[in-house]
Amino acid sequence: MSRATEALARASALVGPELDKAVGRLGAELRQPAEHHLAGGGKGVRGALAVLGAGACSGNEADGVPGAVAVELVHNYSLIHDDIIDNDEERRHRPTVWSAFGVGRAIVVGDALANLANQILLEDPTPRRVRAAQLLAESTALMIAGQADDMAFERLGSVSAEACLKMEEGKTGALLSCASAIGAVLAGGDDATIKALATFGLRVGVAFQAVDDVLGIWGEPELTGKPVGSDLLTHKKSLPVAIARARGGEELDRVLDAVAAEGDVEAATRHIEATGARDEVMAIAERALAEALEALGSVPLVDRYRDDMAALAHFVTARDR
Amino acid sequence: MSRATEALARASALVGPELDKAVGRLGAELRQPAEHHLAGGGKGVRGALAVLGAGACSGNEADGVPGAVAVELVHNYSLIHDDIIDNDEERRHRPTVWSAFGVGRAIVVGDALANLANQILLEDPTPRRVRAAQLLAESTALMIAGQADDMAFERLGSVSAEACLKMEEGKTGALLSCASAIGAVLAGGDDATIKALATFGLRVGVAFQAVDDVLGIWGEPELTGKPVGSDLLTHKKSLPVAIARARGGEELDRVLDAVAAEGDVEAATRHIEATGARDEVMAIAERALAEALEALGSVPLVDRYRDDMAALAHFVTARDR
Repeated sequence: MSRATEALARASALVGPELDKAVGRLGAELRQPAEHHLAGGGKGVRGALAVLGAGACSGNEADGVPGAVAVELVHNYSLIHDDIIDNDEERRHRPTVWSAFGVGRAIVVGDALANLANQILLEDPTPRRVRAAQLLAESTALMIAGQADDMAFERLGSVSAEACLKMEEGKTGALLSCASAIGAVLAGGDDATIKALATFGLRVGVAFQAVDDVLGIWGEPELTGKPVGSDLLTHKKSLPVAIARARGGEELDRVLDAVAAEGDVEAATRHIEATGARDEVMAIAERALAEALEALGSVPLVDRYRDDMAALAHFVTARDR
Repeated sequence: MSRATEALARASALVGPELDKAVGRLGAELRQPAEHHLAGGGKGVRGALAVLGAGACSGNEADGVPGAVAVELVHNYSLIHDDIIDNDEERRHRPTVWSAFGVGRAIVVGDALANLANQILLEDPTPRRVRAAQLLAESTALMIAGQADDMAFERLGSVSAEACLKMEEGKTGALLSCASAIGAVLAGGDDATIKALATFGLRVGVAFQAVDDVLGIWGEPELTGKPVGSDLLTHKKSLPVAIARARGGEELDRVLDAVAAEGDVEAATRHIEATGARDEVMAIAERALAEALEALGSVPLVDRYRDDMAALAHFVTARDR
């Protein structure tokens, strides 16, 4: 195992049972679909960042567990609701909650997990836990705003690269930022440390999403689990498309609209690649990762946990992840 | 104006602008559908209970405003999500959020309002506000569990009156209980007062829902805004149906299933009424209202606010409300 997969396994052993216990509080009607969703796996990156962030501050990963459970609950509620919104029938080769249990149940299960995250943090309201709950609510607001922008962009003809980056900072970066900082909040880290870890998580999120956008167009379907060019067919405004359109001008707009109308994903992909947008997005990912690591190195932390967090950052932004 | 409508108008003048300000924080993509929903009106009963509860403790209604805003946000998020779940295209003779803006947007707008409620209470985390946030999270969990049970019941052939009452305590009572107690929490009321107001709200919720169930079968469509017998056609397991089936035994089951299959709502209504279920449900509502008023009278409170709360309890459980 690599350093990253070892850290993920260690975190999962710590967080998994507590997450199961939290979901176990729900009545059967809600618990069953929630357990179906969680049984799909998921790497638990956000929960791992939360316990590693606590370890990096206090040397004790366990300090971060309530925060890890809360961010995993919020992450999973957002996936359950996103699958309805995107009309996705499968996730990790298994039926999504709405396709297995109906849209109505998927909505209330998501609502239940979102609320459970707050309950977990607030039921023993120490000042640190209250601050963690506050951070989670602020980050969730940014995540929801990013999700709303993403949906709005699908209705628009074109979107600037700046607007697209900002949307992705919200949609993906906000909760990774919260996950990276919440452990430090719970472990009593000082403001500078909390801020540095929040920046680390935000930049990791930008790098992760940039790589994800590239894989959404050029990735191997066997690895990504999505059909080739699915982002192009659904008019998702990902970074490569925004950058290609900015570079290619009105001529490229016409070309892309024409091939999109014919469903010719391969031609659209070639036109986008010819603008250099793919290389530009990978450069954005590399810069964001470098900024993340710089933030991580800017404050005193327990070295082995800092190294674990750096390994995780590399792991989630790798092209073959 | 009656005492109740005067109290509602006074509360609305206090809470409305703060609710608008809260929703005004959202980006346009979320704010627009939220404002569309709120423009539909609604009596603001929950917000009014929150400020009256504060007034009853401290003499200062304004103490309850953050709690009033938070419970109204939670109530409205649940309506927006319920309208998707129930496939209702209209609410108060206007298009519901999902039918005007699409299911996806209605889901994220609901998510945004739910999260905003937490942000409002936690951004100035005094011990009282933290306790209010805790109460809101616990009550929201009960509300969601009640909603999930309600959905589960639609899939079942029959449901006991006890199970139905318990579901309604969650679905309707939990948030009214929270609304009635949260003002006292924010105004620094003691535990006995908070508990008495919570009981008051819970019993008002039971009475309200029992009357609502009766109106769902025997109400005038012009007053209820729903087609005659809509609860029967959608297989909602409301109290009158549960009680009628318990009294009528297997014979009534057969009769109701037969008339339901033929869509003969009038015949079904007659059969249910013949069991005495309608009178029994109205008796349940009267008992619950009496228990609510008893709880309200069991602790020292500022008299004029106590009287306002009692007037509101009568108002929301009236047959012609």
